[in-house]
Amino acid sequence: MNLRIPGPTPCPPEVLEAMGRQMINHRGPEFRALLVNVLSRIKKIYQTEGEVLIFTCSGTGGMEAAIVNTMSPGDHVLSVTNGSFGDRFARIATEFGGQVIKLSFEWGDPVDHQAVSKALKDDPSIKLVLVTHNETSTGVTNDLEAVGAAVREQGRLLLVDAVSSLGAIDLPMDEWGCDVVVTGSQKSWMVPPGLAMVAVSKRAWKAVEEASSPRFYWDFRSMKRFQDNGETPFTPAISVYFALAAALDAMEKEGFANVVARHARVGAYTRNMVKGLGLSLFPNEDYASNTVTAIRAPEGVDVKSLLRTLREQHEVVLAGGQGKLDGRIFRVGHLGYVSEADIDVVREALRAVLPLEASKG
Amino acid sequence: MNLRIPGPTPCPPEVLEAMGRQMINHRGPEFRALLVNVLSRIKKIYQTEGEVLIFTCSGTGGMEAAIVNTMSPGDHVLSVTNGSFGDRFARIATEFGGQVIKLSFEWGDPVDHQAVSKALKDDPSIKLVLVTHNETSTGVTNDLEAVGAAVREQGRLLLVDAVSSLGAIDLPMDEWGCDVVVTGSQKSWMVPPGLAMVAVSKRAWKAVEEASSPRFYWDFRSMKRFQDNGETPFTPAISVYFALAAALDAMEKEGFANVVARHARVGAYTRNMVKGLGLSLFPNEDYASNTVTAIRAPEGVDVKSLLRTLREQHEVVLAGGQGKLDGRIFRVGHLGYVSEADIDVVREALRAVLPLEASKG
Repeated sequence: MNLRIPGPTPCPPEVLEAMGRQMINHRGPEFRALLVNVLSRIKKIYQTEGEVLIFTCSGTGGMEAAIVNTMSPGDHVLSVTNGSFGDRFARIATEFGGQVIKLSFEWGDPVDHQAVSKALKDDPSIKLVLVTHNETSTGVTNDLEAVGAAVREQGRLLLVDAVSSLGAIDLPMDEWGCDVVVTGSQKSWMVPPGLAMVAVSKRAWKAVEEASSPRFYWDFRSMKRFQDNGETPFTPAISVYFALAAALDAMEKEGFANVVARHARVGAYTRNMVKGLGLSLFPNEDYASNTVTAIRAPEGVDVKSLLRTLREQHEVVLAGGQGKLDGRIFRVGHLGYVSEADIDVVREALRAVLPLEASKG
Repeated sequence: MNLRIPGPTPCPPEVLEAMGRQMINHRGPEFRALLVNVLSRIKKIYQTEGEVLIFTCSGTGGMEAAIVNTMSPGDHVLSVTNGSFGDRFARIATEFGGQVIKLSFEWGDPVDHQAVSKALKDDPSIKLVLVTHNETSTGVTNDLEAVGAAVREQGRLLLVDAVSSLGAIDLPMDEWGCDVVVTGSQKSWMVPPGLAMVAVSKRAWKAVEEASSPRFYWDFRSMKRFQDNGETPFTPAISVYFALAAALDAMEKEGFANVVARHARVGAYTRNMVKGLGLSLFPNEDYASNTVTAIRAPEGVDVKSLLRTLREQHEVVLAGGQGKLDGRIFRVGHLGYVSEADIDVVREALRAVLPLEASKG
């Protein structure tokens, strides 16, 4: 199978081999060394002087952790959203009692940092800002640097969903003024799902101390206390840490700047493939993501049928649309363990299948 | 290494092989079939007509899920505890706003079901009862059947931490009147950490609908809705599901009654080994666990030094004591992938090391 969805992504052989290692004591010297090693290397990719905390959960678990550690019930929260994952971030804040003000943009368009700036100036009561770096549902990468500057200028806290960007798209967290940045092992990191990484700026720790939301499994304070001692409060998904160490080896061997450049190259290659097939990109191309490409379903083509035929007859697995884009778009993931050759396989499959599917319509 | 801690437990070769499988689409037919398969087989081990939900997290995540789905802030909760994990369950309920009444028993002793009965009769305001089936910190298996009967008679809801029992010790959940029962992949299931299984009785669903605690990642309702459709709300730790299917194959091949009998046999074998070495069991032997044995540190032996020597010179990894038992006991895990031969290795290592360690004291 050529798995080309925006996560889980395929894993390199050495990562899968690491997944198959025998268990170790999670409170012993071997795990301690593994944890210290992995944390210091991830920090470099975050480009942060803050703390990186690793939780056993999906990316959404990391987003919930970000909210409950920095927000108190009743806090005013600005949700800057242009897609399904931005909306999810807002729903989590609402569920935990945040007074969420939504600043929504058209799906497929980027968020407007000037509108963020205005919203914050107009409402000094807003404490937290939620934003999605790379909106997986629409294939848009937002200008996080500009959003970060707007939020920093107004002295608010910025929580970032970087689940499908970090590790593939440059995100110098401290330089851009981000406070809590969440990513997931099964995306750019070329590792199976099971771990969410959450970086916490020095500024954010003050909010962590002050927040009154109840938390136990997600508590940043106990996670930091244990990690400082080379452990985790609760049994971690050890195999995924093994895999992460192997994936970081591969990323460092390639060089992180080269990893980012490869994603930019493969992203452009995918968009050219789309246009070459006579298809239309869904998002505003100036903000098209280098990790996932959303494509408009051609007139008369049923997306479910298209995806099934691609999978069953060509062993190519793509993703459909989410929420209101269900049936209107399909998506190609190109993050992590990916090269132009993988996109060639997708092109050949689409070339074979699209006329057939259109004739069904 | 002979890893003999009470989880993570060693995994059989076929389980490790399954961990190394390539990723699949978590919203595709292959994962759907895997999930349906695994759920139906786990339900048989729970012996329940209720729902089994699987979360990507540690066992403690499953305990938090049990609390936030059935308890509202202010609810009166009876914590029946005789060890570190019972206390943890109470702390989670307290953190989420429960009014927790503690019914504590000596560490090493079992909980007294008659005291539970009396506490419930005396206080009709108690809505939930928390109990630990197998207290990993002391090596005690509580009489859950009797506790269940007491709670059922009084019409309250029973939440059970079965993290280190289910899959190795018989727990017919419906027959014993348990409402929410939590276990973890890295214990009796012979699988790496990353998944918590949570079974929910029909009675408990009413509480789930009524509970007002905020929840998103842990929400039983969305997990059930997605699982009914062969998916999970958020990206699951796919590799651990692969591994779980392989481990269930092994458990079914052995026969679940034989798995339980093997644990009883190896438990007794371990206790005899302890006595044969002139050591003392920590718990009341009538309630000694068949998955973990807690041993009193002999006079003059430093537990940290003992564990280090065992590991470094004999490749045997045992666990120390937790909380107030730190330095006073050490523990041998014998759950999951274990036989008498593993305990023989522990005996030989202890026989070699103990005189040496005692002479240091």
